[in-house]
Amino acid sequence: VRRLADRAGSGEDRLIARYFKPIARHPGALGLIDDTAIFAPPAGQELVLTADAIVAGMHFLPDDPPEAVARKALRVNLSDLAAKGAKPAGFLLSIALPKNFKSQWLEAFARGLRDDARRYGCPLFGGDTVATAGPVAISVTAFGTLPKGTMVRRFGARIGHGIVITGTIGDAALGLRLRKDRSAARTWKLTPEMGRHLAERYLVPQPRNALAQALRQHASAAMDVSDGLAGDLGKLCRVSSVGAEVEIARVPLSKAARAALAADPSLIKTVLTGGDDFEIIATVPRNALAALKMAARTARVPLTEIGEVVAGKGARFLASNGRALTFARASFSHF
Amino acid sequence: VRRLADRAGSGEDRLIARYFKPIARHPGALGLIDDTAIFAPPAGQELVLTADAIVAGMHFLPDDPPEAVARKALRVNLSDLAAKGAKPAGFLLSIALPKNFKSQWLEAFARGLRDDARRYGCPLFGGDTVATAGPVAISVTAFGTLPKGTMVRRFGARIGHGIVITGTIGDAALGLRLRKDRSAARTWKLTPEMGRHLAERYLVPQPRNALAQALRQHASAAMDVSDGLAGDLGKLCRVSSVGAEVEIARVPLSKAARAALAADPSLIKTVLTGGDDFEIIATVPRNALAALKMAARTARVPLTEIGEVVAGKGARFLASNGRALTFARASFSHF
Repeated sequence: VRRLADRAGSGEDRLIARYFKPIARHPGALGLIDDTAIFAPPAGQELVLTADAIVAGMHFLPDDPPEAVARKALRVNLSDLAAKGAKPAGFLLSIALPKNFKSQWLEAFARGLRDDARRYGCPLFGGDTVATAGPVAISVTAFGTLPKGTMVRRFGARIGHGIVITGTIGDAALGLRLRKDRSAARTWKLTPEMGRHLAERYLVPQPRNALAQALRQHASAAMDVSDGLAGDLGKLCRVSSVGAEVEIARVPLSKAARAALAADPSLIKTVLTGGDDFEIIATVPRNALAALKMAARTARVPLTEIGEVVAGKGARFLASNGRALTFARASFSHF
Repeated sequence: VRRLADRAGSGEDRLIARYFKPIARHPGALGLIDDTAIFAPPAGQELVLTADAIVAGMHFLPDDPPEAVARKALRVNLSDLAAKGAKPAGFLLSIALPKNFKSQWLEAFARGLRDDARRYGCPLFGGDTVATAGPVAISVTAFGTLPKGTMVRRFGARIGHGIVITGTIGDAALGLRLRKDRSAARTWKLTPEMGRHLAERYLVPQPRNALAQALRQHASAAMDVSDGLAGDLGKLCRVSSVGAEVEIARVPLSKAARAALAADPSLIKTVLTGGDDFEIIATVPRNALAALKMAARTARVPLTEIGEVVAGKGARFLASNGRALTFARASFSHF
């Protein structure tokens, strides 16, 4: 109700017309001049819906570049759509801003949002802009489409299935540590390039939407890793009533993460439980592994087999001596 | 990604399982144990989507009963669906809570949400629970369905069409004034019952979803009144390139609002611009007015004709002497 894109209207209306209307290019968004938007999935398809919020001081740092904040807000949702095999279709945005927000901040935020909306084919359909006495809070609801009944579930892992993961793990968690303690770069003996790599991985997730279709075709279960690999794989196992064994040595690491681990081997727990990876973990029947790996190569998404679904409970992370690592806290939780 | 309804999981997961899973009764919500939800509109129908956020200290008061806060968060969205002629189908919820939130607060919040989800046939499909260092912030994305191409637009008012409004106007704005200044009840010579009525109208909107189908059949344009009747009717006129004339004497008022106005006639500006009414303003071709009034009676929604669409620009509110009232600020805006 508070989103009329009308230059003659209130401050809010002008703000929406100026910053957000250019991102609302789908005809169903009605140019943001109505109270609701319209969407119909193509014939034979259904909608997949997800909502994720990010708050300054919790999910991003107040001095993060606003373009990066916008990208993160959208991408953490796109990552969910990717893991479930859905094609992004659009999103709604609620943003709570301090009354004295800087227009440059919002301009840069909108620029980052617009770029990503284009890049991922996921236009803005509506939303709300409100004032808050607290930190900036951004809630995105994203929706995608896929053929009816083909969503990749968390449930579905079977004993003997292979476990694969996209990209590299732990970079974002190390990047956040680095942001909070600049001296860590020296302790970890990182080159400036490595430091930048880790920082960037915390700042802007790289959702794996290019892999969505292949996951739909080949994965028995999947989810995106947002709260730490160890905990998230544990959750996937739990709903499937299986266990998992992962060889830590096979977990894919960036050059920067390898350097940090060489300097401080105890960082392995940060890597495996730190969160904010926004990679996809999937289980795959043995006879589909080769096809999924091939599809990942075609989609230019790095994919690594790291372990196997086993009988039992929980995800075990095995060191090279065969012992399972134990974690005080396997995944991130706000409460 | 942070919504696994799993008692063995993290604090967040337990919180979601305990409070929110009981509200997620649609099979497409997958019991909140997956990363996304699934929804397909019935054949021949399309989806109508809206997002509205409420923030403590801005849209509700920090000591408002949590049940009422939950109802308001959902109902401001249901009100949009109603005005557009859509039938509620479901919603997603993002809630940012202080780390030290009281579990009784969240329990009561979830109770209010569950009651309304049932009452309006609008179950929970997913969402996110995050921590904030600021005030409680709640963002809801609601979606509804309607036959393809039948959404009631803001655009569509034609010269000569009648202007109707549901319920009574100004109660919520007066209720908020009363909440902030208890002595006003004496100044306005309100009975205790009148005071309660106004306070209640601010606390919990009454969305007019019972009128949705009739609006689809008979209205040429409609929107819900959230930011003040004067400003919102102005917005409706602007997108339709028409003007409006409203006789102030015909604007429906509650007994309490009439009493307050009798004591202080200057309150008429608060009534007409104060916002939070969540009633529906619609324009209706003359030959459809009788049918819409009949349908409203059947749906037990009070409906009053208050004026007419005219040539020109803007909404004019005419006093009994024929003069147009002027407003310093026709509608609420956060910025």
